[in-house]
Amino acid sequence: MQTLQEKAAEWSGVDTSDAFAIDETNLYEKLGLQTFINLSTNFYTRVFDDEEEWFRSIFASSTKEDAIRNQYEFFVQRMGGPSLFSQRKGHPALIGRHRPFPVTHKAAERWLHHMQQALDSTADIDDDSKTKMMNFFRHTAFFLVAGDELKNQSQASTCKNCKHH
Amino acid sequence: MQTLQEKAAEWSGVDTSDAFAIDETNLYEKLGLQTFINLSTNFYTRVFDDEEEWFRSIFASSTKEDAIRNQYEFFVQRMGGPSLFSQRKGHPALIGRHRPFPVTHKAAERWLHHMQQALDSTADIDDDSKTKMMNFFRHTAFFLVAGDELKNQSQASTCKNCKHH
Repeated sequence: MQTLQEKAAEWSGVDTSDAFAIDETNLYEKLGLQTFINLSTNFYTRVFDDEEEWFRSIFASSTKEDAIRNQYEFFVQRMGGPSLFSQRKGHPALIGRHRPFPVTHKAAERWLHHMQQALDSTADIDDDSKTKMMNFFRHTAFFLVAGDELKNQSQASTCKNCKHH
Repeated sequence: MQTLQEKAAEWSGVDTSDAFAIDETNLYEKLGLQTFINLSTNFYTRVFDDEEEWFRSIFASSTKEDAIRNQYEFFVQRMGGPSLFSQRKGHPALIGRHRPFPVTHKAAERWLHHMQQALDSTADIDDDSKTKMMNFFRHTAFFLVAGDELKNQSQASTCKNCKHH
């Protein structure tokens, strides 16, 4: 059976070691807090305005402000800055926290489309940082698709003795 | 509805901010890699020899060597060292990766019992580091109990239309 990281690497086309090349430099120190806030604001402005209703609706349970804060606090923490996310909410627990959402291949690609545009329209992100971040995001998006499939496995096994399913 | 971190704080008796006081100092730089390897070796030696078969059996799907490496690489990464765990396996995804295991209140307490003994029997861990680490471990253990309950919620909702359950 493939592991989560093997699925993520295969589906994203990004090796696990390339995804975590974000740790070779401290991107938080390089880019600064405001850049991360701007990036997440850019990203969620696109997401909350997405013409694709199926994608926009995935985020409907949260306010835009909360979504922005959760995201940039996680990015800051993961990319070398203070542990803003964990101080407030505990472990990132990415698969567990994405559990309520349908993280499909299609949703991952739509997320990445908006993130690429957000990166390109945020000032002060150099090309090397952009590449490192997109590799990280791309691998992570498909890591979460792999995590989402665990739900289906669990549902199948839960109901294995149940004639109705 | 209580959040994961609210449940973790209530059940563990450790506030989220106290749990992540591990980030106030760099415990990896303070203690060094070998101390983390020794701690995890001590811990899993106790776990794999546990007279309580119900607890020991939770770990039976892994070799002791793999369990030790997975644990110390995560601890090193989370406590200020290089991202050994993610380079090899991707995101910690603590809730997702604990999904196959029955993380009950009783199992959390047994885990913590062995970890307290492992900390006490590992050389070169000062009292302040020990306190910080136990607060982190205690909060995290019950964060995972809270995460484990998501499985039951999912199972319940999966089968909500099923007369057999």
